[in-house]
Amino acid sequence: MESVMNCAEEQQPSSMTNLWSNKQEPSRTQKAKGGFVLVHAGAGYHSESKAKEYKHVCKRACQRAVDQLKAGALAVEAVAAALVELEDSPFTNAGMGSNLNLSGEIECDASIMDGKSLHFGAVGAISGIKNPVLVANCLLKEGQKGKLSAGRIPPCFLVGRGARDWAVSHGIPSCPSEKMATKFSLSAYKRNKRKMELAERMDAGHNQTKKRRQSNENENGSGCLDTVGAVVVDLEGNVAAAVSSGGLAMKHPGRIGQAAHYGCGCWAENACNINSYSTAVSTSGCGEHLIRTMLARECSAAMQSEDAHQALLEAMQNKFISSPFLASEDRVLGGVIVLRCCTCVEAQSSQNIQGILVEFLWSHTTESMCVGYMSVQDSKAKTHISRLPSGTVPGQSLAIEGDVLRRFNSW
Amino acid sequence: MESVMNCAEEQQPSSMTNLWSNKQEPSRTQKAKGGFVLVHAGAGYHSESKAKEYKHVCKRACQRAVDQLKAGALAVEAVAAALVELEDSPFTNAGMGSNLNLSGEIECDASIMDGKSLHFGAVGAISGIKNPVLVANCLLKEGQKGKLSAGRIPPCFLVGRGARDWAVSHGIPSCPSEKMATKFSLSAYKRNKRKMELAERMDAGHNQTKKRRQSNENENGSGCLDTVGAVVVDLEGNVAAAVSSGGLAMKHPGRIGQAAHYGCGCWAENACNINSYSTAVSTSGCGEHLIRTMLARECSAAMQSEDAHQALLEAMQNKFISSPFLASEDRVLGGVIVLRCCTCVEAQSSQNIQGILVEFLWSHTTESMCVGYMSVQDSKAKTHISRLPSGTVPGQSLAIEGDVLRRFNSW
Repeated sequence: MESVMNCAEEQQPSSMTNLWSNKQEPSRTQKAKGGFVLVHAGAGYHSESKAKEYKHVCKRACQRAVDQLKAGALAVEAVAAALVELEDSPFTNAGMGSNLNLSGEIECDASIMDGKSLHFGAVGAISGIKNPVLVANCLLKEGQKGKLSAGRIPPCFLVGRGARDWAVSHGIPSCPSEKMATKFSLSAYKRNKRKMELAERMDAGHNQTKKRRQSNENENGSGCLDTVGAVVVDLEGNVAAAVSSGGLAMKHPGRIGQAAHYGCGCWAENACNINSYSTAVSTSGCGEHLIRTMLARECSAAMQSEDAHQALLEAMQNKFISSPFLASEDRVLGGVIVLRCCTCVEAQSSQNIQGILVEFLWSHTTESMCVGYMSVQDSKAKTHISRLPSGTVPGQSLAIEGDVLRRFNSW
Repeated sequence: MESVMNCAEEQQPSSMTNLWSNKQEPSRTQKAKGGFVLVHAGAGYHSESKAKEYKHVCKRACQRAVDQLKAGALAVEAVAAALVELEDSPFTNAGMGSNLNLSGEIECDASIMDGKSLHFGAVGAISGIKNPVLVANCLLKEGQKGKLSAGRIPPCFLVGRGARDWAVSHGIPSCPSEKMATKFSLSAYKRNKRKMELAERMDAGHNQTKKRRQSNENENGSGCLDTVGAVVVDLEGNVAAAVSSGGLAMKHPGRIGQAAHYGCGCWAENACNINSYSTAVSTSGCGEHLIRTMLARECSAAMQSEDAHQALLEAMQNKFISSPFLASEDRVLGGVIVLRCCTCVEAQSSQNIQGILVEFLWSHTTESMCVGYMSVQDSKAKTHISRLPSGTVPGQSLAIEGDVLRRFNSW
């Protein structure tokens, strides 16, 4: 596994205070377009050498989403735009520069969910496509069009070669696999391969069960889990979420992680009769842990409670770290970004003014998690690398932070 | 799509009465092994010509599970044994005789869940393996052993070529794809291909959106959805569930249906602090509908309510037919088998005797669903083809039936 270094650069952590509380009515002629985006460049361990790059890519991803929102795009388009930027970075484990699998190939997972239509699109173990999220988004869109010829139901989840062929036939160009690997990913693969061979030689002769339980428990620890994702709310209050990943380093070919898995990698649901809040979630971390706990959907459901911070804290503790589904795991590694929003009313000078309240949070059990966020009114994105409190154990403890955005009269 | 005929052969439907209520204490020397299995050969439309075969294979599958239970096997082994028999039938859409995809290939999905360990294994779009459920079961078992060399986390979900290679490297033999196709599946493929080409020619020149919405809405209707599955409770009260499918006929290569999808194809959870009942569920029908509603997990959660019949009825109505996730679908096609069990106490001759209560049900929105069930005490399985009441519309109405098994002192 990729070895990572301690990070010296550290921003001030955000606290649960209101960042924005703009109660001035905007000019009628210059009515601002609305919306907000929160992105992550993975829960894992962010090295000093790469922290700046992670933050830069988060900034660029936020800007891409905001550009879309300013142009009047819906949340699902804005979230896809953010993901493309995150995938294109050679520093993230998604799209370009993804981890290589056991055979030295790149196989990516990605999914996207539209909280308005509740449609979903996903690709798994897809090779030779620069932006897997665009295939997932195209599957989502095709699904919304209804049945195919002869009454066939359109797929929402495609994998492998079939997924690539489908993408190409829908106008998404293929990309030679060798162009998606970077110097960094190739050298990490060689290093990992040597480590694996060494571990297997050292284990040879030991009892098989003991070997598997004890060997190098830390090596796949918090490193190299830097899946990417984003959540967006648009001017109309629609939410969307997306996630994209190259998967665990040295995974078996054909392995599918949470990023392609419904309910596990991302979730988005607009408010409805039953739910007061629109919610959107994107996860990162160890795919198998995130699948078996369905963490995205669990966090989304928890967000209907009154206190968002407390609800996320309890969800991460009870539905993830202490989940009965992971009872045999000694360290449960993952992180989430969460957004919820609702309309709210404030009494001002004897009149009630309607506004929108967006609460956004991130939480992780990995050593660190890199996030960025931006509203349409902001001139640039804020970025932050959240870290576990010193002295706590990754996989057994968690960090949780967040903020609130209130806008009245208009976004 | 495969056209299917009305079924003349019909067994008496079961009612919600107690089938067994053996209150005699068994001989200490001949203590009966316990357990119960419920299988399905799919929710779809069961033709007269094939009804007998469907029932026969359900019988054989029940017998295989019961043989395992009698030999002291745990629920997860018994459920896998039932699935192998269901997959081996050329009449079911799983393993041998599966539907062919658009390219004329067989690609199978299967998954299995163990209610005791809560571990899960799944394969998707796997070719050239006679019994996909055995690969899923092997993934489950390997997952239970803990980490791989160099601390790598074992996969729980593999697809495509990678899944096949993994299976072969774990001792599961490959099977030439041409041996898995049957005369029946090949002729159905040719027929479907002609129908599709005809539909596309007829649609040519029409508006694309209109074409997709209107064309042949009924063709993929209730036919050819005959995914198979089973749920089992063993002597110790552990539950397990499994499901296997060749997927929709003429699906795109690489398409993954609910049978490989966590929470959608099958679910099993032993009773615990939070849940009074052990529950196991297996689903069948249109994969995309079953994925987007996570029907297996929803039904399992519903089964913690007091009245199992009412809870399943409400789950099928509110979480499936009227699900907001399928708001744009005119017909929602699927079926489930459900089992729940708990220990119970009965006062007899001034002493309290502990027993086990197993409630099992099936429900479907498709025209018919074929089920079979058997307890370890039975000499042979009961089978039944459940049908929608006449005059009701498939995809908008449902049938629900079930039964109860009570055993005291011992299974």
